[in-house]
Amino acid sequence: MNTCYWIWYHGDFELYHAMKQNFSRVERGYGWPAFWKSEGFRNRVVFRKEYTLEEETTFCVYSKAVGYVLAGEKKYPFGTKITCGPGKIKISVHAGRIEAFPSIYIKGEVIYSDKTWFAEDYTNPPAAAGYSRYFTDEKQDPSVWDYSEAVYMPVSAENYEQGVLYGFETELTAVLEIEYKNGYRPLTVCCGESKEEALDREHCYYSWNPDPQTGRCPRCAVRYAYIPDCRKEEIAVKAIHQYVDIPVRARFSSNDALLNQIWSVAEHTFKLCSGVFFIDGIKRDKWIWSGDAYQSFFVNQYLMADPDINRRTLLALRGNDPLTTHINTILDYTLYWILGIKSHEEAYGDLEFVGQIYPKMCTLMEFCESQLEEHGFLTGREGDWIFIDWADLDKEGALCAEQMLFAECYHTMAVLSRKLGVETARCEEYQKKYEQLTKNINTFYWDSEKGAYIDSFVSGKKHVARHANIFAILFDIADEEQKKQIVEQVLLNEQVPQITTPYFKFYEMDALCKMGRLEEVFVRIREYWGGMMERGAVTFWEEFDPAVPEEEQYDMYGDKFGKSLCHAWSASPIYLLAKYFVGLTVTDPAKGTYEIHPHLEYFESLDCVLPVGEKDIHIMWDGKEMKIEG
Amino acid sequence: MNTCYWIWYHGDFELYHAMKQNFSRVERGYGWPAFWKSEGFRNRVVFRKEYTLEEETTFCVYSKAVGYVLAGEKKYPFGTKITCGPGKIKISVHAGRIEAFPSIYIKGEVIYSDKTWFAEDYTNPPAAAGYSRYFTDEKQDPSVWDYSEAVYMPVSAENYEQGVLYGFETELTAVLEIEYKNGYRPLTVCCGESKEEALDREHCYYSWNPDPQTGRCPRCAVRYAYIPDCRKEEIAVKAIHQYVDIPVRARFSSNDALLNQIWSVAEHTFKLCSGVFFIDGIKRDKWIWSGDAYQSFFVNQYLMADPDINRRTLLALRGNDPLTTHINTILDYTLYWILGIKSHEEAYGDLEFVGQIYPKMCTLMEFCESQLEEHGFLTGREGDWIFIDWADLDKEGALCAEQMLFAECYHTMAVLSRKLGVETARCEEYQKKYEQLTKNINTFYWDSEKGAYIDSFVSGKKHVARHANIFAILFDIADEEQKKQIVEQVLLNEQVPQITTPYFKFYEMDALCKMGRLEEVFVRIREYWGGMMERGAVTFWEEFDPAVPEEEQYDMYGDKFGKSLCHAWSASPIYLLAKYFVGLTVTDPAKGTYEIHPHLEYFESLDCVLPVGEKDIHIMWDGKEMKIEG
Repeated sequence: MNTCYWIWYHGDFELYHAMKQNFSRVERGYGWPAFWKSEGFRNRVVFRKEYTLEEETTFCVYSKAVGYVLAGEKKYPFGTKITCGPGKIKISVHAGRIEAFPSIYIKGEVIYSDKTWFAEDYTNPPAAAGYSRYFTDEKQDPSVWDYSEAVYMPVSAENYEQGVLYGFETELTAVLEIEYKNGYRPLTVCCGESKEEALDREHCYYSWNPDPQTGRCPRCAVRYAYIPDCRKEEIAVKAIHQYVDIPVRARFSSNDALLNQIWSVAEHTFKLCSGVFFIDGIKRDKWIWSGDAYQSFFVNQYLMADPDINRRTLLALRGNDPLTTHINTILDYTLYWILGIKSHEEAYGDLEFVGQIYPKMCTLMEFCESQLEEHGFLTGREGDWIFIDWADLDKEGALCAEQMLFAECYHTMAVLSRKLGVETARCEEYQKKYEQLTKNINTFYWDSEKGAYIDSFVSGKKHVARHANIFAILFDIADEEQKKQIVEQVLLNEQVPQITTPYFKFYEMDALCKMGRLEEVFVRIREYWGGMMERGAVTFWEEFDPAVPEEEQYDMYGDKFGKSLCHAWSASPIYLLAKYFVGLTVTDPAKGTYEIHPHLEYFESLDCVLPVGEKDIHIMWDGKEMKIEG
Repeated sequence: MNTCYWIWYHGDFELYHAMKQNFSRVERGYGWPAFWKSEGFRNRVVFRKEYTLEEETTFCVYSKAVGYVLAGEKKYPFGTKITCGPGKIKISVHAGRIEAFPSIYIKGEVIYSDKTWFAEDYTNPPAAAGYSRYFTDEKQDPSVWDYSEAVYMPVSAENYEQGVLYGFETELTAVLEIEYKNGYRPLTVCCGESKEEALDREHCYYSWNPDPQTGRCPRCAVRYAYIPDCRKEEIAVKAIHQYVDIPVRARFSSNDALLNQIWSVAEHTFKLCSGVFFIDGIKRDKWIWSGDAYQSFFVNQYLMADPDINRRTLLALRGNDPLTTHINTILDYTLYWILGIKSHEEAYGDLEFVGQIYPKMCTLMEFCESQLEEHGFLTGREGDWIFIDWADLDKEGALCAEQMLFAECYHTMAVLSRKLGVETARCEEYQKKYEQLTKNINTFYWDSEKGAYIDSFVSGKKHVARHANIFAILFDIADEEQKKQIVEQVLLNEQVPQITTPYFKFYEMDALCKMGRLEEVFVRIREYWGGMMERGAVTFWEEFDPAVPEEEQYDMYGDKFGKSLCHAWSASPIYLLAKYFVGLTVTDPAKGTYEIHPHLEYFESLDCVLPVGEKDIHIMWDGKEMKIEG
C-alpha cells in the first residue's frame, strides 16, 4: 500500500507554523509576537498531475479548503468518490483557504497525493508540492500540529507560605492539569524554570488560571509550579509534556562521568528546543532565530541527524520573494541562512531541497548586493541590525565579521551551484566574487602588526575583537600563517576581551578545535557547562557567568528572570565532543562514508553511537583497543 | 464624544474580505474559489501615534490579535486600563494574527483610534491606518461583516408534484429558514433565480439541507425555493435577506411608466450587487471583477453616491506590490483599475484616497510597461487574458482596444499626478507618453478608407469591430471628424457585428449619447430592458437576446441555468438616464457644483433627485416649467 501525504504549496506549511511559533511568546499576561515581517502563506492554490491509467480507478480528495476537483472535463466536490480511466487524464484540485494554507489529501490506489504532484500559486512557475512525514492520514489537518505527549507527575510538593510548590524532575514544555479533589475553585498557577521564579508571583513569566472545565493551563515552559493559597490535599497536579517526536540517534558514554552528564543535559536541552522548528529557548523567546538555528544544525547532525527540522526551519526563516528586510531584521542572520544550507547539504547530501530553494538563495544574495559600499563591502541600511554578538565591536563603516560571513556565502553559492549543475558562468561568477571579497578583506582588515583582523578600517581605531578572527579561521579567510598568529595574538591573548555568550563561545571553541587546541576546549567544557550543573542546571542556560552571585544568576536583559534556562545554543558540547573528540566527520552522507580521527587520549573508555546518513556508527574504546561498527 | 474606529493596515480589511467574497462561489455542491492570485493581508503590524497630553488620561486597547501596548517605556496587555500623561508620550500597539488581519480599537477620551494613527508592516514606510464607518464599536470584529437583515415572507406557495414551490416578491440574497410544525425531519431546499431553476432538482445551483438545530440554509441568491416531498402544512418558510445598508439617494419619476419601472428594477439589481464590494452578480460568480466594477462606479455616482464601496472595491482588486499578474488575470481589467480611480475622483473629489494608492498606480503602470512590443504597444504575456468582450476580435499582435485603454491610463496618470501635486517632470512624462501613444494608435490602427479603427495591424486582415471605435469616442482618441465617421461607418452600420453583451452595450450607448444620439439610446433602453421585464424579469440579466425562445432564455456558458439573472452591469439605464436625459454632470464634488442640460423633449413630466457631493439635487419638470432645488 502506498503512503498518501497531505500536500500544499511548497513552503506554506512552514510559513504558517512559523507564525504560530513566533506569535506564541507570552510574558506576564501579554503576547509578544516577533518584531519582524511575518506573513506569507498562500490562500489560493491549484494542484495538478497527469496520469496514464491502465484501467479504471477511483480516488477521493479531502480538504478543509473551499474548492473542487477537476478530473478531465468534470468537476466534483471534495469528499466524493471519483472514478476515471482507463487512458490519459489530467487531474487538478482547486483550493482556497483564508485562515490557513490550503492543503489536500488524495486517497486512492493509483491516484494519490505525494511530492510528485505540482502546485501553482498564480504567480510562480509550478513547483513540486510540499509534504511532511507527520501528515499521512486523511483525518489530520496540516494546520494543526499533532504533538506527542508524555505525562510527568511532580517529584516534589512542598508547602510554602500559604501555598504549594511542585517540582518536576526536569524542565518540560507542558500543559499543567489540576485535578480538584473537592470541586473546582479559582486558583493561580505560577510557573518557573527555577524555584525562585515560580515562587515570585509578581515576576514569574507565566501565571495561569486553570480552565474551570478541564483544569488545564496553557502550554508553557515549566520545571516548578507554585500554587498560592492552596493546600496539598485539595488538588493533584500533573504535567502533560508536549513535544515533536524526533528520535535521538546518538549516544555518548565514557569513563568521564561529568562529560557523560554534560552530554545528557545538552541532549535534553536540545530536544526541548527542537520542535516544529529550531527555536532559541523554550521559555523565552520561543522564536525562530537564524543565528541560533545555524548552530542547531551542527548539533542536530551529530545528535538526531534529522534533515526535516532543518528544512522546516530554513523555509520558515526565509519567507517569500521579494525579500524586503533581513531575516529577523539582522544582517548577519540573513547570511547564516545561506551558510545553514551548506551545512545541511554537507550533513545530508540533500540536493533535492537545495535545488528547490536555490532561486531564493540567489535572490537573497542579490538583496545583499544591493547594500554594498564603495569597496564592495556589505553594510546595513537604516533599520538593519548589525549584530554579530553582544560584544563591544567597532561598528563604524563596514564591519569585518560581516564581510567574512558574506565571503563564505559566496563560497557556499559557488560550491552548491556546482553541485546542482548550474551553468558554469554563474558558478564562476560566485567563485570570483568570493575570491575578490576575501582578497579585499585581507587588504583592508588584516593588521600585520597586531597579527589580527580589525573590526573597522573606517574609524581608524584598529579595534581587535575575537569575532572576526574566529571567522577567519572557521571560513579559511586567513592563511595558515595568519591563523597561527590569530591563535597567539587573539584567542590565547587575555588582553583581548573574552567572549561572554555561549553563542559565540561555540564558534570560538570550534575554531580552537580546528586549530588543534583540544586541550583548552576540553577544560572549558568541563568548567563552563560543569559549572552550570553545579548551580543545579538540568538544562543549559542562555548565558552563564560563574562570577555572578547565585541570587542574581537568573537575571538578564534587566529582568530578574529574563534569562532563558533552556537554550539551544548551549547544547554545543554535543557537536564539539562528537566532531573533535570522538573525531567523526561525514564525507558522503548519501553513501554513508565518513572519516574518524578520535582523540583517545582524553578517554579511558568510550562507547558512542553517532549517525552518518542512514547508518548509526558504533565506536567503542576500552583503553586498549578501538572498535567501529556500522 | 469622539468616534473611535477599528483600525488596521490600510488595505488589509479589503484584501481579507475580498477573499471571503471571491471564495464564496458555490455550484451544485462544490466551492469554486476565483481563479486568480488571492492573498495578501498582513499578519504582523504595529500601530503608532505620539501624543502631547495636557493632563493625565486613560485608554484601553481592544483586539483579537496577539500583542501588547507600549505606552512610553511600559508594556501592557490588551483589555487593561492604561493611565498616562501629562506630557509627551509615544504609544505603540503591536499585533499579530494569523487567521485574519490584525486590527485594534482604542477607547479613550484623548487617546483613541482613528485614521490619524499610523500603521507599519515591517516592509513599507508607515502609512495612515485603514478604517471603516461600519466598525466603530469595541464589541465588533472587523473580520466579520455585520450585515443588515430584512425578513421576507413568501408571496406564493404552490403544490408541485410531491412538494411545495415558494415564491418571493423579488430576488434576494437570503438565508432561508424552515420552521417545522411537526418537528425536524431531513428536507432538501432547491433555490432558483427562476421558477424553472428551483424546480430542477438536478440542475439548480443551490440545494441545501437545512441545519437540524436552526432550520437555516446557507445564504444564497433566491427568488423561488422548491421543497420536494413536503406538504405546505408541515412547514413555514421565511427568507432573511442580508445586505449592506448603502442608502439610495437618487429617485427617478417621469410620466413614462415603463422608464420608471426600468429605473426601479435597475436600482434593485444594482443594490443587490453592491455589498461589501461591487460584484458581478448575486448567484454567479459573486466575484469582484475589475471590468464590472468600473461600470458600477458610474451607476453608483448617480444612484447611491457612496465613495466607500468604490474604495473597498479598488483596494480589493489591486492587491499588494509587487504586481505579478493582471487583475482577474485580464490585461484590460488591470487598465480599468486606473480608469476607475479617475472616475472615483471625478465623482467624489477624493484626493486623499488617490494619494494613498498613488504608489500602487505607478507600479501598476510600470508593470504594464514591462510588456510593450517594439512600437510601444501593450501586449499580453503567456497566460494573460486579452478579453475586451465576448466578441469576434482580431487579436493577432497588439489589440487596438487595449492601446486605447492604456492611453487613457496615461492620461489619467497625468491628470491625477497634477491634482496630487506630484513633481512636474513626472506629470509631463505621463502626458508625453499619453500623447505619443495616442499618435501611434492613429498611425497604426486608423483606417481612413474604412473611416474606422481596425483591431490589429499585424494580421493584415483590417478587421473592424465596434469596440475600439467606441473607446476612441469615449476617450477622445479620435478627433471630431473621425468620431463622426465612426458613428456613420461603425456604430450605425449594420454590417458591423452588433455588440451582444450588456457589458459592452454600456460603452456603446455611452458613446452614442456622447455623440448626441440620444434617440437611438432612448429606443434601445425601452426595447432591451423593457424586453427583459416582459419576460418576467424583476432584476436585470447578465445577457438578453430577444430572439432566444423562452425555454432557453436562462442558458449561458453551456449551462441550462448558467445565466445570472441579477447582474450589476445591466443597471446602466440609471447612469444613462441620469447623465444624458436628466443631463446632470458633477463639476466639483467638493463644492457640490454641477451642470445640468436636461433633454426635456423625452418627458412630459419629471420628478428626480440626483446626488452631487453631499447635496441631493431635486429636479422637477411639469411640462411647462423646470425647477431645480438643492
